[in-house]
Amino acid sequence: MRNKILELLRANTSTYLSGEEIASQLGVSRTAIWKHMQELKNAGYEIASHARKGYQLIAAPDRLLADTIGNGLNTKLIGSAFVCFDNVKSTNDEAKALARKGAVNGTVVVSEAQSVGKGRMERSFFCPEGGIWFSVILRPDFLPMEAPKCTLLAAVAVTKAMRKQGLEAGIKWPNDIICQGKKLTGILTEMSAEMDKINYVVIGTGINVNIPAASFPEELQDKASSMSALLGHDVPKIAFFQDVLRNMEKLYLEIEANGFKELLQQWRHYSITLGQEINVIGVKETFSGIARDIDDDGALLVETQQGLRKVLAGDVSIRPRNKQVK
Amino acid sequence: MRNKILELLRANTSTYLSGEEIASQLGVSRTAIWKHMQELKNAGYEIASHARKGYQLIAAPDRLLADTIGNGLNTKLIGSAFVCFDNVKSTNDEAKALARKGAVNGTVVVSEAQSVGKGRMERSFFCPEGGIWFSVILRPDFLPMEAPKCTLLAAVAVTKAMRKQGLEAGIKWPNDIICQGKKLTGILTEMSAEMDKINYVVIGTGINVNIPAASFPEELQDKASSMSALLGHDVPKIAFFQDVLRNMEKLYLEIEANGFKELLQQWRHYSITLGQEINVIGVKETFSGIARDIDDDGALLVETQQGLRKVLAGDVSIRPRNKQVK
Repeated sequence: MRNKILELLRANTSTYLSGEEIASQLGVSRTAIWKHMQELKNAGYEIASHARKGYQLIAAPDRLLADTIGNGLNTKLIGSAFVCFDNVKSTNDEAKALARKGAVNGTVVVSEAQSVGKGRMERSFFCPEGGIWFSVILRPDFLPMEAPKCTLLAAVAVTKAMRKQGLEAGIKWPNDIICQGKKLTGILTEMSAEMDKINYVVIGTGINVNIPAASFPEELQDKASSMSALLGHDVPKIAFFQDVLRNMEKLYLEIEANGFKELLQQWRHYSITLGQEINVIGVKETFSGIARDIDDDGALLVETQQGLRKVLAGDVSIRPRNKQVK
Repeated sequence: MRNKILELLRANTSTYLSGEEIASQLGVSRTAIWKHMQELKNAGYEIASHARKGYQLIAAPDRLLADTIGNGLNTKLIGSAFVCFDNVKSTNDEAKALARKGAVNGTVVVSEAQSVGKGRMERSFFCPEGGIWFSVILRPDFLPMEAPKCTLLAAVAVTKAMRKQGLEAGIKWPNDIICQGKKLTGILTEMSAEMDKINYVVIGTGINVNIPAASFPEELQDKASSMSALLGHDVPKIAFFQDVLRNMEKLYLEIEANGFKELLQQWRHYSITLGQEINVIGVKETFSGIARDIDDDGALLVETQQGLRKVLAGDVSIRPRNKQVK
């Protein structure tokens, strides 16, 4: 009902719409309409109301709601359904539970804040209000061994949208988005699969959008930042998020139609790792070399004195060679 | 309590154990002991009871119970916990739910019958009483892309145990166990993973052990059979199952210590596909060739007139070339 009222209001933003007309179009009482209007105002919608003329939508809140994100999104797949939270433990956990229950391909789970941010290898992640914490459920046709490349897809989609906002963001292999040496985004992709068939992939992405620099925990101060802190002003959250979702859709449809070639090409374009001298710090050994390329599997190819080495996204950390490693 | 009573009885199979002694050792009443004895008898345990002398275990049932499987199993990992059912929809579904709740590495879920057998690519599978339908939860350290080889592990473990029972069983790539041209076992491996870390793998295996040939549905009559039907006598189910679990443990520990080399070698030894002229029937195309080897990924290498082709376990079916393909 709330969404139907919003639809009517959005279709008539230049004029007032009488409570009677809305009530009769939706087949409910005027009192019910009045109650819904109060709820929408409480949710942050700016609605002018006039005793005689009725209601008029002045502005939607810059909040992550199915209505605000969906309005003008114009995607076919990504955002086929929205599940929105003010605060949730983990959008990935919610998305996995929904996927098990049969949630449709392209379902987006998003939250204003997360109480338990989860990064790769069970590392924790700072997820306060002001960011965008979301998970996309995909049910791709390709083999499970192709799934790691979904992480690259999210990285490219977010980096592209950040550049549009004026940030010189780039991708540190495999899945960190960095700007001015600080991390702005973390991506955690999970999947459920049979050996030759993906049940579902959940791409979890956390983006530090409008978060004051000072609110980051001390141990993150020199490692992480937010878009607003680096730009010096807040970013229009909904418009930015819509851009991210549209970019994801475009890349995903391209993969479905023509495979991963274009995605890998775009990833190379946004990479800040390629061409750099790096240290590869693994569980068993550490070595140095020059990051030359990623191969068709998304593995990093590192030129070492012993020849070209292929680095899979295991527990490996990549550091610029001239920096001191703690 | 039941398992503690069984432990005491098993430790004294050559003599009677008085109800009083059992009751005092376990700190419960003699009436309670009597009730448990009735339950054990109902579950199929043969227990001699004598008004003055007490109780003596004559024989355990050949039923899939934690006690019967665990007794003398002597494994460290596989069977670290047992969850046993008379009938269940799908041991894989049960195992996945348990794994999500944190079930330990090596947990075995087993059922006397399954109401919804699930094969690869959502094919259904006939799972009546008399078979062994089980799933093993593993939490391996290796990368998700290595997980498909867990299917090979189960295939080798089962084939080896079948040969010990006198059946000339062999493995048809990737995961069918065949004897006299008929399928005796199906394997479905599923996993939950991050891109670079396996959360858990569930290897589901269904073995047609003691199932009368006549009870197979008509459409399976010329495709599937059971161990008992081919041998002409029933197989001791528990002893056979223990063998399978011990084989799995040995192979798994070998993988953990030295990687997949030995497993692949054993798979080659039991393969009935290698060296054969085959048709590879895929979704997009069909081609013919000679199955030459499996590579380090477990992919089948097929020699064709256009050169060596690598076949992944997608929706591919392999048929002997001289047989008519429907």
